[in-house]
Amino acid sequence: MARAHWGCCPWLVLLCACAWGHTKPVDLGGQDVRNCSTNPPYLPVTVVNTTMSLTALRQQMQTQNLSAYIIPGTDAHMNEYIGQHDERRAWITGFTGSAGTAVVTMKKAAVWTDSRYWTQAERQMDCNWELHKEVGTTSIVTWLLTEIPAGGRVGFDPFLLSIDTWESYDLALQGSNRQLVSITTNLVDLVWGSERPPVPNQPIYALQEAFTGSTWQEKVSGVRSQMQKHQKVPTAVLLSALEETAWLFNLRASDIPYNPFFYSYTLLTDSSIRLFANKSRFSSETLSYLNSSCTGPMCVQIEDYSQVRDSIQAYSLGDVRIWIGTSYTMYGIYEMIPKEKLVTDTYSPVMMTKAVKNSKEQALLKASHVRDAVAVIRYLVWLEKNVPKGTVDEFSGAEIVDKFRGEEQFSSGPSFETISASGLNAALAHYSPTKELNRKLSSDEMYLLDSGGQYWDGTTDITRTVHWGTPSAFQKEAYTRVLIGNIDLSRLIFPAATSGRMVEAFARRALWDAGLNYGHGTGHGIGNFLCVHEWPVGFQSNNIAMAKGMFTSIEPGYYKDGEFGIRLEDVALVVEAKTKYPGSYLTFEVVSFVPYDRNLIDVSLLSPEHLQYLNRYYQTIREKVGPELQRRQLLEEFEWLQQHTEPLAARAPDTASWASVLVVSTLAILGWSV
Amino acid sequence: MARAHWGCCPWLVLLCACAWGHTKPVDLGGQDVRNCSTNPPYLPVTVVNTTMSLTALRQQMQTQNLSAYIIPGTDAHMNEYIGQHDERRAWITGFTGSAGTAVVTMKKAAVWTDSRYWTQAERQMDCNWELHKEVGTTSIVTWLLTEIPAGGRVGFDPFLLSIDTWESYDLALQGSNRQLVSITTNLVDLVWGSERPPVPNQPIYALQEAFTGSTWQEKVSGVRSQMQKHQKVPTAVLLSALEETAWLFNLRASDIPYNPFFYSYTLLTDSSIRLFANKSRFSSETLSYLNSSCTGPMCVQIEDYSQVRDSIQAYSLGDVRIWIGTSYTMYGIYEMIPKEKLVTDTYSPVMMTKAVKNSKEQALLKASHVRDAVAVIRYLVWLEKNVPKGTVDEFSGAEIVDKFRGEEQFSSGPSFETISASGLNAALAHYSPTKELNRKLSSDEMYLLDSGGQYWDGTTDITRTVHWGTPSAFQKEAYTRVLIGNIDLSRLIFPAATSGRMVEAFARRALWDAGLNYGHGTGHGIGNFLCVHEWPVGFQSNNIAMAKGMFTSIEPGYYKDGEFGIRLEDVALVVEAKTKYPGSYLTFEVVSFVPYDRNLIDVSLLSPEHLQYLNRYYQTIREKVGPELQRRQLLEEFEWLQQHTEPLAARAPDTASWASVLVVSTLAILGWSV
Repeated sequence: MARAHWGCCPWLVLLCACAWGHTKPVDLGGQDVRNCSTNPPYLPVTVVNTTMSLTALRQQMQTQNLSAYIIPGTDAHMNEYIGQHDERRAWITGFTGSAGTAVVTMKKAAVWTDSRYWTQAERQMDCNWELHKEVGTTSIVTWLLTEIPAGGRVGFDPFLLSIDTWESYDLALQGSNRQLVSITTNLVDLVWGSERPPVPNQPIYALQEAFTGSTWQEKVSGVRSQMQKHQKVPTAVLLSALEETAWLFNLRASDIPYNPFFYSYTLLTDSSIRLFANKSRFSSETLSYLNSSCTGPMCVQIEDYSQVRDSIQAYSLGDVRIWIGTSYTMYGIYEMIPKEKLVTDTYSPVMMTKAVKNSKEQALLKASHVRDAVAVIRYLVWLEKNVPKGTVDEFSGAEIVDKFRGEEQFSSGPSFETISASGLNAALAHYSPTKELNRKLSSDEMYLLDSGGQYWDGTTDITRTVHWGTPSAFQKEAYTRVLIGNIDLSRLIFPAATSGRMVEAFARRALWDAGLNYGHGTGHGIGNFLCVHEWPVGFQSNNIAMAKGMFTSIEPGYYKDGEFGIRLEDVALVVEAKTKYPGSYLTFEVVSFVPYDRNLIDVSLLSPEHLQYLNRYYQTIREKVGPELQRRQLLEEFEWLQQHTEPLAARAPDTASWASVLVVSTLAILGWSV
Repeated sequence: MARAHWGCCPWLVLLCACAWGHTKPVDLGGQDVRNCSTNPPYLPVTVVNTTMSLTALRQQMQTQNLSAYIIPGTDAHMNEYIGQHDERRAWITGFTGSAGTAVVTMKKAAVWTDSRYWTQAERQMDCNWELHKEVGTTSIVTWLLTEIPAGGRVGFDPFLLSIDTWESYDLALQGSNRQLVSITTNLVDLVWGSERPPVPNQPIYALQEAFTGSTWQEKVSGVRSQMQKHQKVPTAVLLSALEETAWLFNLRASDIPYNPFFYSYTLLTDSSIRLFANKSRFSSETLSYLNSSCTGPMCVQIEDYSQVRDSIQAYSLGDVRIWIGTSYTMYGIYEMIPKEKLVTDTYSPVMMTKAVKNSKEQALLKASHVRDAVAVIRYLVWLEKNVPKGTVDEFSGAEIVDKFRGEEQFSSGPSFETISASGLNAALAHYSPTKELNRKLSSDEMYLLDSGGQYWDGTTDITRTVHWGTPSAFQKEAYTRVLIGNIDLSRLIFPAATSGRMVEAFARRALWDAGLNYGHGTGHGIGNFLCVHEWPVGFQSNNIAMAKGMFTSIEPGYYKDGEFGIRLEDVALVVEAKTKYPGSYLTFEVVSFVPYDRNLIDVSLLSPEHLQYLNRYYQTIREKVGPELQRRQLLEEFEWLQQHTEPLAARAPDTASWASVLVVSTLAILGWSV
């Protein structure tokens, strides 16, 4: 899934926003958007009236003597998907897009967001709000300097700014005679009051041992061993990302949409384990599983979630060194620890360890992908029968694939909001249908499905693009070039510890060759019943080097504005490559098992190596998924699979483009006339 | 040329040292190195006795109340090649390697350098010096903390530490109760005294207009226009790199080996132009060329080189903002400017502008490459005749190619020390022969020549690897895979503004595929009678994005320790690519015109596209160099060129590997048995 929230954390939004920024801004023509230049202003029904709440917020700002207040769209844990009670920016502005920052002064209010959301913002915000079609703290601070007087105080909730974001505000304001003021009580929450949705309180449960790669005790020992080996010998590791605590203790819950996490922090010291969460959410069995009744180094002491700041401050008084991953730690935690007691890395040891799956975790993730393929194949077969009837739309289709996934063993819901996009909608970077707004599927258009599931054994994510009628030559060419990109990266052999950034262009070369490209990243890590976008694995500049045992998606695409969109996404395991000469080399083993659309492949563009790779992959799909379909008596699906994995044959030499290349080459050799 | 000093600046040494670090340390067996563990120690004749100079240095340190003194191997301008009077580290230690830092305490003295230089250091240093086989400030500071007491003062020359290096020392020492102390009088110079070689004093001359892309007035106006457009509207640009001043004024001299530069700074303000250099070195014509007798905004005021620090301090008193490129500015300049008056970018506007050659500069650089090809072809023909006689060694060969280059029009000497390496010597990362130490060229071994020239119209750099006898199958395979890498990157089509880092793996893929690789970068920018390694263009992570009009080398290689080395290096111009669908795409146009060695190409490994590319390139060589050879009556060389650019033919289909792939593929389709 190539989405805005790339990685389990909103700080990645910028990266993606920049990438998508290459595509043109969405045309507002025909959309029902606000017009603040008329008198009275025109406001569509989708707009939220924010006058009352803004007045109340400004009263709160006055009590704190603030000239401005920053309202980020994040939560306290850099979650990709955030809970309703954390939707502060959406509530105060009306704008519900997943990326954007609001700033309120005593006279003005403004939102900054990227091009994916400009139309949406104009449909949802009333005229109290300026829309700034930019992102980044520089733009916000430039505006602030003109809007607030010298000596002004700029308030922010320290739990909603990452260390990096805080530093960029701090740097930009330096020498400006405006002061950043950390206020731990969130002012929007004070205004929101009793209307604010409650914090989730569902039970926190332990995963069955069958679904875990190691026990929590083994994981705790592993992290402590890394602490001892670290040059600076930290005395504790502080975990802020919810996935870190969930992974460490093999605990799950459902506080966050699409992610089986619960609000928590962990302070793992050399002699204690402190888990900050609401104790009432643990059953007695879970408390016992965690050895919570004792206080030794292998007992988990549960402290209240709200105590984390005070507890860290108290712990920091001792002769300690606290190891944090700066990418997932908010300023509200960071400011409590004296600088000389901090040991910082970009990612915590838990993030780094979790990135490499052990053999049991690999087997679990692979097994979940086999069942996931069954669900997707069932859906593709169902579409083939139902689309021609004209009864399927993007939304009802998404419901069907979600239903099929739900029927798979160990299912725990979708891993993100299904992207089910027909025709021109698939060209939109950030599209999901709604019950009200959707498009009918048709044999005359391409259809893109990007979806995934959460299963107790693994998280999945796959994209297929299909056409049931007669695609245009350009559609086939673009599809085949995307496919070549997928194959070229999947079969690449590269040295161990190569960064993804250095090789991702192999997924683009076939498109570049014709003057085509895509404006998003090429892939991301994925978890075992954790994040669908699991950092720090992937192909972007802030991803870590590839290592055996990592899983990543590989997902080139092509998008033709106003016409169609193509994306072919597989999940792949990083494995050792066998090379002719000995060396430490890696390659990818694809673990997504759904065939591509034969109707969209122009075989003449494929080299013999591409065909060889593709036919081997199809053979693997048959071996992995065929028996599962038969066992489940899904005979129609089994037949479909056999047909769609028939080996593809090269074009006869007399018409193949390869032959024509040979001819051109021969001409070149003979006559120099090419 | 893939060298340690990658870019006109020693701060890049680290990058290259790391890359080369993949190769094994050089075996000391048989080398005449020091042995400090015997009594008395064994010291080879190559060792320098440093006892006296160390005693004198420690006296100087005592007068400054220093516990330690840092002696970097750099000069005040980040020059790649440094003048003899700047060889402070070499003089005080005896170790002449081009990378390494010395630190002296009251009791100990130590040198840090990378694996390329370990043997050399053991041959040149006496037992006063510890050798630390590491690089980086972390290792140095760790050592310092154990060697000097709390409260100790660590002295350094602020003109020999870049801003970045100073910051890394400062950061590493924070909270350690040791103080970094900037001392503008260099203590080694005080000890060196009258023995120190004088500062060069040759005339500084203006390039003829025929060899410049724009007048200096146009360049000054261009930079001022960039100042006005800059968001922070700087009032001045300060240029520290010698190539910046040389480029801006179209002035040259010969202060630095291989680089036609002179010691200088430039402070270009919105209303004045201040050139810091020794005024006596300018002729009256040059002074008049610079309008040096007036004081208006287009008059160049020449101030003494030694005045730069005071002048910047004085200028900084005003309401000014000084724009610097941090990569080329030393701490000694940086510390004079109040932080709020600094406008910093990684590279100065001159560096950024110089990176993109205008059409005249492109034509000049291309013309110099045609003449350079004549010199290299003359040498290859000469080698073919003379190597079989057994009369050529690496050093005498290097002298011949330097001589042939010297005979070309507009020649101004080599652009770096010629790498002329036979057999196993070519596998050494950092090898140049000497009159005393060299290897005979033979028809039984491969020979690698990496060399280039300075011409008034352009700087060149090319590497060819040849074999006059019967290469092994592995040598041919490795050579062909290196060639495929060169071709695959050279013919790549990529979007405008792609960074080199994202595409350099195309030069490695064919090697990776077989488990082979090379441990250096893939290319670097090059100048018009400026640096042979001209930053910021290239394929490394700190290079800027590719743009039309840039020149870069493309130079994959393969090195088999103790056996042979291969590198194929061309210089290429970044040009617009014509793609099937419209878009802003770039590709490379190779401007080095010397054919590869047919004797080393295994045609069966080449695809039809590779052959097509190669044959087109050969046709271009014929068109560009053939007439020049004929015009010069170099008829033997013309014949040689015709032979060596005969079109290469694909293997007959019944034996070609492409056919076998087709067969394998067909088998796969039919029987799944592959």
